Amino acid sequence: MMKSEIAAPFGLAMTTTTSKHQRDTTFMTVGTFKILKKSGDCKARLGTLETANGTIRTPVFMPVGTQGTVKSISNDELVALGAEIILSNAYHLYLRPGTELISAAGGINNFIGWKKPMLTDSGGFQVFSLATLRRLNADGVEFRSHIDGSKHTFTPEKSIEVQQKIGADIIMCFDECAPYPCAYDYAGRSMDTSVKWAQRCKEYFEKNKPVSERGQLLFGIIQGSVYSDLRQESARRTVEIGFPGYAIGGLSVGEPKDEMAAMLEATVPLLPEEKPHYLMGVGMPEDIWEAVERGIDMFDCVLPTRNGRNGQAFTMRGKVNISNAGYQRDFGPVDPECNCPACRGYSRSYINHLFRSQELLALRLLTLHNLYFMINLLDIVRKSIESDTFIEAKKRFFSGYFQHE
Amino acid sequence: MMKSEIAAPFGLAMTTTTSKHQRDTTFMTVGTFKILKKSGDCKARLGTLETANGTIRTPVFMPVGTQGTVKSISNDELVALGAEIILSNAYHLYLRPGTELISAAGGINNFIGWKKPMLTDSGGFQVFSLATLRRLNADGVEFRSHIDGSKHTFTPEKSIEVQQKIGADIIMCFDECAPYPCAYDYAGRSMDTSVKWAQRCKEYFEKNKPVSERGQLLFGIIQGSVYSDLRQESARRTVEIGFPGYAIGGLSVGEPKDEMAAMLEATVPLLPEEKPHYLMGVGMPEDIWEAVERGIDMFDCVLPTRNGRNGQAFTMRGKVNISNAGYQRDFGPVDPECNCPACRGYSRSYINHLFRSQELLALRLLTLHNLYFMINLLDIVRKSIESDTFIEAKKRFFSGYFQHE
Repeated sequence: MMKSEIAAPFGLAMTTTTSKHQRDTTFMTVGTFKILKKSGDCKARLGTLETANGTIRTPVFMPVGTQGTVKSISNDELVALGAEIILSNAYHLYLRPGTELISAAGGINNFIGWKKPMLTDSGGFQVFSLATLRRLNADGVEFRSHIDGSKHTFTPEKSIEVQQKIGADIIMCFDECAPYPCAYDYAGRSMDTSVKWAQRCKEYFEKNKPVSERGQLLFGIIQGSVYSDLRQESARRTVEIGFPGYAIGGLSVGEPKDEMAAMLEATVPLLPEEKPHYLMGVGMPEDIWEAVERGIDMFDCVLPTRNGRNGQAFTMRGKVNISNAGYQRDFGPVDPECNCPACRGYSRSYINHLFRSQELLALRLLTLHNLYFMINLLDIVRKSIESDTFIEAKKRFFSGYFQHE
Repeated sequence: MMKSEIAAPFGLAMTTTTSKHQRDTTFMTVGTFKILKKSGDCKARLGTLETANGTIRTPVFMPVGTQGTVKSISNDELVALGAEIILSNAYHLYLRPGTELISAAGGINNFIGWKKPMLTDSGGFQVFSLATLRRLNADGVEFRSHIDGSKHTFTPEKSIEVQQKIGADIIMCFDECAPYPCAYDYAGRSMDTSVKWAQRCKEYFEKNKPVSERGQLLFGIIQGSVYSDLRQESARRTVEIGFPGYAIGGLSVGEPKDEMAAMLEATVPLLPEEKPHYLMGVGMPEDIWEAVERGIDMFDCVLPTRNGRNGQAFTMRGKVNISNAGYQRDFGPVDPECNCPACRGYSRSYINHLFRSQELLALRLLTLHNLYFMINLLDIVRKSIESDTFIEAKKRFFSGYFQHE
C-alpha cells in the first residue's frame, strides 16, 4: 500500500460541527482491522486499522509524545517522517494541562494540532512508576502528583473518564503494571486486579460514551509478569470481556529478551487473530522483528527519541554514539544510507559539536534521525511481509545491525 | 525586489573545488553595496550587499547563531523564514569546536550546512563580557575560557586569523567594547585602542588572505561610548583606515534609547554613504525603525530568539508573554495576523502548556515566531523605503506596537 493512499477519511469528524451522518459513517468503520497478508512461515501479518482520524498501516511504530508533544519535534515534521499515529499519556495530561482544558480545546487532536490518529495510555504504568505515596486498593490507586505533590485517585472509571475527555482515537484500560522481578503470587493477584479493572473500564466506557463520540476504541491489556500461565489466564479472561484490540503490557521492564519472546509465544495465540495486537513500551529495532514474527502489530517506545536526545543514533549497522569524541572530526553524515533531514543536511562532526555545546538542535536532529529510522524500519518490515520474505529480511537486518558486536 | 530574485550566485564558490574563474568573478563583485533607493525625508535607504555566498537585501536583520546554530532552529527553517544572513561568533567557535576543526570542514558554511551569507563577530565583545581573568594590554587581551578556564590570548592579528580560518563572508575588527556607564577618559582610551587595533586588523587581513580566499569582507567598528566627540573621532579615524563596511559597536549596552539615537546622529553622517552601516547587537523592533531612519542597514540581536525561549512573542500589537497563566485557555494563535509555522499550527493555550511542561517544542515555536516577525518587519521597512513612505510606516508601526502601554 502506498503512503499517498493513507488518507484520513474521517478527518472532518474531529471538529465539533460533525453532522449526525458523518458520525454514523464513522461508527461503521472505526475499529475495522483488515489483515491484508499473512507470513507463510511465522505469525507476522500486514494490516490496516481504521480510526476516527484515519487509517494506520500495521505493523506500526508509534512515536511517544508523553505530554502531548513528541519531544522537540513539530507536527509537520512527524507527518513528513511518515508517522501515522502518535501516543500520549493520560496520567501526564490529566495532571497538566488538565482534562477539562483539553476537552474545552475540542480534544487532544485539536489541542495539540495533530490531524492523524492518537492513542493515550491509561496512566496505569505512570501511576506505578512516577507518582509518589501510592495506596493501592481494590477500587483504584491514590497517589501524589510527581509535579506538585497534590493528591489524586485513579480508578478504572476515572481513567476512562479522563481518556474520554482527552479524546484520543485509541484508549487503554487502566491496569496495574507489576514490577520486575515479581513474585508469582504478587503477579497473580496483580493480574487478577487488572482483569477486574478491565471489566469495569469497559462497563464505564460503554455507559459514558460522550454525545460527540466519534468512534473511540478501548483496548484491553494482558498482564501476568513472566509467568506463562498467568499471561494465559489474563489473555483468556480479557478476551472474554471483549475489546476491539489487545495490548500486552508489563514487558520490556527489565526481563531478559528470551523471556519476552516466551511471553509473546504463550499469549498471542490466545488473542483473536482478527484484532490488532499491541506490545506496549517496546521496542528497540531488534525487538520489533522478534515481536512481529510472533504476531504483534503495534509498538511504542521512548528509546528512539530518548536515546536520540542522549546522542545515540540508530543505523542499519548498529547504534552510534555521535556525542563521542571519536566523531569530532567525522565530516560524513550520521548514516550514509539514510535520507532523513539530519543526514541530508548535517555532519557527525557538527552534531557532535552541537551536543558538546548543549545546543537544542542536537536533540532535534538525532530525534528526527531515530524516528525516521524506526518508521523506515517498519516500512521494511511491512514490505517483507507483503512479499512473504519476512524471515529473510529479519536475518538480513540482524546481520547488519549486530555486525560490530 | 522579490524574494525569489535573491539567488546565491556564488553559492558554488564555497566548495573547495572552486575554479580560478569562479574566484575571480567573486572578487569582482563581493563587497559591492548598491543603494537602490533613498528616503526623501530621512536617512533610510534600500540596498543590496554582495557577498561570496549571495546577495543580502538591506536593511536586514541577522538572526544570531552564536555557537554556529540559531538556537533550536534548523537551516531549512531559517531559509523558509527568509533569513538572508546569519551571525556566529569567533570567540565561541575558537573555543569550541576550534578554528582548526572548522577549517578542516571547509569553513563555517560547510561545517554547519548553511548555504547563505554568514558574518562572524570578532569575539571582542565576548572576551569582555564572558571570559574571566582578563588582562588587557596594548597588544591584546589575555583571558580564561568561560567553558574550561583554559588560558588564551586574543590580539587583533589572532582574531583575524581565527576569522579567516572560520571563513564567514563578513568578519569584524577586534575591538574593545567599553562597558556602560563609562567615564569619558576610559571611553576615550578604549576608543583609541580600538582604532589602533582596527589598523592592525586590516594590515593582518590584507597580508594573510588565504589562497582559497573567496572575497571575505572585513568591517571596521566605531566605538566611543555615549560621547559624541569620541564617536566622531572614532568614525573619522576608522574611515581613514578604510573598510568595505562600518559597524557601530558598544550601543544597546544599557544606555537610554535617546542616547543611542544621539550617537547614531553624531556618527552615521561621518561614515561613507556608499558603504553598509551595521548597528551591532541591536535591536528590538522599535530600535530597527529608529536606526534605519538614521541610516543603518544591518542589525543583529539575540533578543528575538532569547525572549522567544523565555516565552515572549513579538506581535504588531506589542509583546505577549505566552507562558503567563492568562493564556492557558486561549485557543487562538499567538498572533492572529501572523502566518509563521507556530501561528499556523498551534494555539497560545498549547504553547503555554509546552512552556509549563518545559517541553523543547515551546522554545522552537516562539523562536520561529519571533524570527518570522523580525524578518517580516524588515520586509515592511524595506517596502516602505521603496515606496518612500518610511516615516508614515514607522508611525503606523509604533501606534500599533505600543497601543497597550
